[in-house]
Amino acid sequence: MDVDVTEIKAAAARIADLVQRTPMLPSRYWSEVAGGRVWLKAECLQRTGSFKLRGAANMIRMLTPEERARGVVAASAGNHAQGVAVAARAEGVRAVVVMPTSASFAKVEAARGYGAEVVLEGASYAEAAQAMRRLAAEQGLTVIPAFDDERVIAGQGTVGLEIVAQCPDVELVLVPVGGGGLAAGVAMVVKTLRPAVRVVGVQAAAAPAARESFIHRHPRTVPPRVTIADGIAVSRPGDVTLPFLLRYLDDLVAVDEESITGAMVALLERSKLVVEGAGAVGAAALLARAVDARNRITVLILSGGNIDMNLLGRVVEHGLAHAGRYLVVRVALHDRPGQLARVLRVLADAGANVLDIYHRRTGSHLTFGQVQVELLLETRNAAHAEAVCAALEAHGYHESPVLESASVTRVFVAE
Amino acid sequence: MDVDVTEIKAAAARIADLVQRTPMLPSRYWSEVAGGRVWLKAECLQRTGSFKLRGAANMIRMLTPEERARGVVAASAGNHAQGVAVAARAEGVRAVVVMPTSASFAKVEAARGYGAEVVLEGASYAEAAQAMRRLAAEQGLTVIPAFDDERVIAGQGTVGLEIVAQCPDVELVLVPVGGGGLAAGVAMVVKTLRPAVRVVGVQAAAAPAARESFIHRHPRTVPPRVTIADGIAVSRPGDVTLPFLLRYLDDLVAVDEESITGAMVALLERSKLVVEGAGAVGAAALLARAVDARNRITVLILSGGNIDMNLLGRVVEHGLAHAGRYLVVRVALHDRPGQLARVLRVLADAGANVLDIYHRRTGSHLTFGQVQVELLLETRNAAHAEAVCAALEAHGYHESPVLESASVTRVFVAE
Repeated sequence: MDVDVTEIKAAAARIADLVQRTPMLPSRYWSEVAGGRVWLKAECLQRTGSFKLRGAANMIRMLTPEERARGVVAASAGNHAQGVAVAARAEGVRAVVVMPTSASFAKVEAARGYGAEVVLEGASYAEAAQAMRRLAAEQGLTVIPAFDDERVIAGQGTVGLEIVAQCPDVELVLVPVGGGGLAAGVAMVVKTLRPAVRVVGVQAAAAPAARESFIHRHPRTVPPRVTIADGIAVSRPGDVTLPFLLRYLDDLVAVDEESITGAMVALLERSKLVVEGAGAVGAAALLARAVDARNRITVLILSGGNIDMNLLGRVVEHGLAHAGRYLVVRVALHDRPGQLARVLRVLADAGANVLDIYHRRTGSHLTFGQVQVELLLETRNAAHAEAVCAALEAHGYHESPVLESASVTRVFVAE
Repeated sequence: MDVDVTEIKAAAARIADLVQRTPMLPSRYWSEVAGGRVWLKAECLQRTGSFKLRGAANMIRMLTPEERARGVVAASAGNHAQGVAVAARAEGVRAVVVMPTSASFAKVEAARGYGAEVVLEGASYAEAAQAMRRLAAEQGLTVIPAFDDERVIAGQGTVGLEIVAQCPDVELVLVPVGGGGLAAGVAMVVKTLRPAVRVVGVQAAAAPAARESFIHRHPRTVPPRVTIADGIAVSRPGDVTLPFLLRYLDDLVAVDEESITGAMVALLERSKLVVEGAGAVGAAALLARAVDARNRITVLILSGGNIDMNLLGRVVEHGLAHAGRYLVVRVALHDRPGQLARVLRVLADAGANVLDIYHRRTGSHLTFGQVQVELLLETRNAAHAEAVCAALEAHGYHESPVLESASVTRVFVAE
């Protein structure tokens, strides 16, 4: 099977009853960031919370009756697992999903909730994939690959068809790249229908295998580091997907973790959308100016929204701290009445709002007769946070050079 | 001016270039909760983050040239302020927004960012409204009311037109009620075009003025208590809006804070949408079974998404705790080596993941020679959280009847 526009149109018809045509949303905020006009392709609002349903549904619906009767298997702790589970259930096909034992409660429950049999096996994705191949051989199950298959690529390419239909004057498309399934399908269809449109892939700098392969025009294996964009943290692009990336992508850029987290917070705060790290890399590329979108009409593909709520809470905190909207100060005080009240007055006069206080009597940098107070403050922005620190200095609390792990924690010692 | 369907259609044409036709999203999750079919009218994706832009834009565009030249004023610390600011800027009209001095940084910055002059005055909304009337008289500014005006109601009613167009087979509409502007416009247009559709208003139980007035068929003043749904916390429905509510609403129900918080978390986690408390009351009514939506086609109006990120972080935590995905235990231990390690082993064996530990030497319920450890645990669900507590009991840590403010904190004392 070839992946061409005809095949992607056939995929769109094949999966139409199962997937949403997700909204294309205009965004003033991202337009200002880009210096052009930006539209958000909100694939985070897709059923199962990501585009992965499209490829899984297209492949499962193309299986032979014999293959369907035997069932399917996939290895994934994330969006692919949910896509396979939902697509298989819709067809009455048995689905087994192998997840590494470290998979979060939420992801296991989600796949089970969609009707899949979850097998927890292996310490890593690679070990889970090995277990998947063993189960496939033992039980005659058909493997549904996460990206490296023409039928999966054709399904993901339906996002590109919708982009061209919903935003006919598009000039630039930013698409997240992991294994390359989404980028292959989208780039192929967009560049074929609209050769003048630029299509740029975006990776997390912590997982740069596709970018390295793109630059060297040859597959490279690069083990990913830990990244908030875990959905696109793969060690090597696909053998089927890479030729599409080489032929159809105009560029493939990388973004750092701070930009991704910042983009996730801005998408929450300004766009009211929950977008996972892998889905936010396009927005991060605009924030980091990794792509020139000035005076262009840009479509950002927000490819998924599945993020553990615990992690989301930490992302919000981190983002607020980074934007100076949150400041942690530790103040070492003499252990005498009235000292805390005095600090609080300085902070109130500086316009900082106290969210939390911890009072400690022990600490490696405290001398005898000192206590330490840790205050979590709400501040307006980074400049205001600096002004609050300056006010403490001015009132005789001297900033200490003690190294802190969190860069937003500032340490002061009373005169 | 009368508010009728013709007038609302005129409003829709008048504001079409300034507002979004927001998406109507199908939702499997909310359909399961309701036992019917549920669509989300995602007005949280509206420009400025809420429906309030519609009413403000309609009124400002209906002002006389003289009124425009003099400018407008509004009192609001929330969505109405942003709606007025954006609508006025689009028309080149001066906008003054009076906010109480307690308004959050984020809200002040948002209104300023949209070009409004922000005046911080008054300890409460009532005092800010007084300042607004004084400024209007002194400077000849036209007051843009938050809800109690036919032009504002007509603008909000455009949400109802979109509902009927986007979901023609709708049978039940759930609409948040504060002052009643949105509910008045939506109920009027939906009941006029589709008399068989049920339209039910939803309030926060902590701010029940409209419900009390609806039940007694007469305006009642009820000072609101603190609620997460601050956007609909008003003390009295409008003189203009109430007759619409009495005539067109089929019912007006109330939901408690737990349901609202739970709905906000579910909208984040399952629907990938950031919805503020006031916007989530319809979803809360489904969760709390305050409305019977079984076997019906229901449209939930998610009226806004403006929530301070700090507050959003706390909502996520609270929601996870309530769902048993988070458990705080305090354990009083003998102050001897190895005691903490023993507790951690019990917790690990019970499958709880430790997120945070605080170790304290002082506490009102500690006897001499005891220390207290507070552990923040990740658990799978409420049953798992109970099993973790049972494991502590079984290993000689006895739950103490000490009253805690947070219902999710459990206190144990070592034998």
